[in-house]
Amino acid sequence: MQRASFRDMNCSIAQCLEVIGEWWTILILRDVFFGVTRFDELQGRLGISRNILNDRLNRLVEEDVLEKVPYQAHPPRYDYRLTKKGRALWPVLTTMRQWGDDWAVGDAGKPVELLHTTCGHRTTAVLHCADCGERLAGRDLRLRAGPGAGEDSVLPDELTRA
Amino acid sequence: MQRASFRDMNCSIAQCLEVIGEWWTILILRDVFFGVTRFDELQGRLGISRNILNDRLNRLVEEDVLEKVPYQAHPPRYDYRLTKKGRALWPVLTTMRQWGDDWAVGDAGKPVELLHTTCGHRTTAVLHCADCGERLAGRDLRLRAGPGAGEDSVLPDELTRA
Repeated sequence: MQRASFRDMNCSIAQCLEVIGEWWTILILRDVFFGVTRFDELQGRLGISRNILNDRLNRLVEEDVLEKVPYQAHPPRYDYRLTKKGRALWPVLTTMRQWGDDWAVGDAGKPVELLHTTCGHRTTAVLHCADCGERLAGRDLRLRAGPGAGEDSVLPDELTRA
Repeated sequence: MQRASFRDMNCSIAQCLEVIGEWWTILILRDVFFGVTRFDELQGRLGISRNILNDRLNRLVEEDVLEKVPYQAHPPRYDYRLTKKGRALWPVLTTMRQWGDDWAVGDAGKPVELLHTTCGHRTTAVLHCADCGERLAGRDLRLRAGPGAGEDSVLPDELTRA
């Protein structure tokens, strides 16, 4: 891979991208969330080279986002399943999907909808404040240095001091 | 760019990635959300080549995620500012940051925190159902074909029929 690593950046977005930011990786995860867990099926759906798919899957297993579960011994074959760390990515995929729905999808409407089984409705996910419970608007949010900001914080100085 | 395009995929995640999925692009947007709007400052903070930065910024302007606002005429210089479409990406960056906080940050703690000005607390953003208002859990969500699914839906057949 001829690309810079974000590993040394003191930034949680960079760390997330380091794990899932390669071209194709998020679409592979999308398919695993759909329940597609086998190499050949992923390869057929995505139409990518076996080399690239193999590289991306191995990386996700190394990063503990996917785990390989054998389903056949001769020859050895595996299901790729989401770990807890992998399942925790659903908010990232959901907010990406919704942005695409809002800004990049044509008149035909959403290709995929979210069904909330608890209430039974097709819905969208909206972000609320975990503290006060109110729905969040971008204009009501500021970024501040956290406990792990350190000397190498990626925040601009004026935000670090605030 | 030697990479496949996702433009023809009938998938909103793919369309989102087509706009912001290039290596470096999301970190550029992170910095613009921090208030860093000028080429030289972005280049210095990110430590990337001017060619790559120029390519990524031009792409974001073409896609109407950023707009160029002149701040100096001789020589011409621009601020890169988020459009409405660009500001709408805050949930994507926020969920990525929070996943990184939860799964990829060491003992030092979060480098950056979210301040909710309305309630005054440092908080996290959690996803709620826009319909019933309840907090969403990944296990309570299913994916279903939407109105724009069409013949070329990326959903596996069993989900399309459900």
